[in-house]
Amino acid sequence: MPKIDLGAIEPVNKTGYPPPFDEPVAGRWQRRLGAINGMTHLGANHVTLKPGAWSSQRHWHEGEDEFLVMLSGEAVLIEDEGETVLHPGDCVAWPAGVRNGHHLVNRSTVDCAFICFSAGDRQEGGAYSDIDMVFTRDGYFHRDGTPYPIRK
Amino acid sequence: MPKIDLGAIEPVNKTGYPPPFDEPVAGRWQRRLGAINGMTHLGANHVTLKPGAWSSQRHWHEGEDEFLVMLSGEAVLIEDEGETVLHPGDCVAWPAGVRNGHHLVNRSTVDCAFICFSAGDRQEGGAYSDIDMVFTRDGYFHRDGTPYPIRK
Repeated sequence: MPKIDLGAIEPVNKTGYPPPFDEPVAGRWQRRLGAINGMTHLGANHVTLKPGAWSSQRHWHEGEDEFLVMLSGEAVLIEDEGETVLHPGDCVAWPAGVRNGHHLVNRSTVDCAFICFSAGDRQEGGAYSDIDMVFTRDGYFHRDGTPYPIRK
Repeated sequence: MPKIDLGAIEPVNKTGYPPPFDEPVAGRWQRRLGAINGMTHLGANHVTLKPGAWSSQRHWHEGEDEFLVMLSGEAVLIEDEGETVLHPGDCVAWPAGVRNGHHLVNRSTVDCAFICFSAGDRQEGGAYSDIDMVFTRDGYFHRDGTPYPIRK
């Protein structure tokens, strides 16, 4: 197993978010590094954010740990406590079940890149801090339980 | 949860390896970033290798995925197929159950650093490729099942 050739993996910018929540992540280009390399327990996702793009809607996971390593460029981490600028080499940990929504926003004029790792039970779902949306194993819902339309 | 302050975490160079297998890792200084930040599913270990130090004995895990991100300096990755030099930003994935032993050796004259992530079942154990040693949930053993002395 040699080192991973990132350039050989086609990045994709798809999302399951219903409109209009999909718009801020249109400039998020992801390379899934875990499953493609045979990993079954550990998620690893290389992400490039174009200027203006968000990593996700601000969210937290009930059953999944997440850990981010900043690789290049600069991004603003937004959490309940406020904002933190991240530079290459910076690390952030988000333990499962901590209901402190987080996301990164690229407010710079050039691309930034990071890798986000995850492990645990994604099926337990979670929620979005700033919008009327939660996620479960069955998809995206309003807080009152009404489902959002499923994205084709 | 702000970004992790690596400088506030004391690095340790301890190992459970029985002599003489502990000698090559004496210059391996680790900062455990997972549990200290409340993570219960995802292991994250920041490692600095002094010149000459090894990351571990060359090994593989039966039930645990591992993923490495090189942060600074240069190290030589050694696997069954041979050697690969790793530089900052390089990534390597080792899926659970793939019996291709791997480790990093710092053959340069300056420190190098990386983060290694893990997830899965560490209790399933694994083995070392170049020495008469395996590991289980109960410790280190010769291939014939004879236990190594437990390190105090």
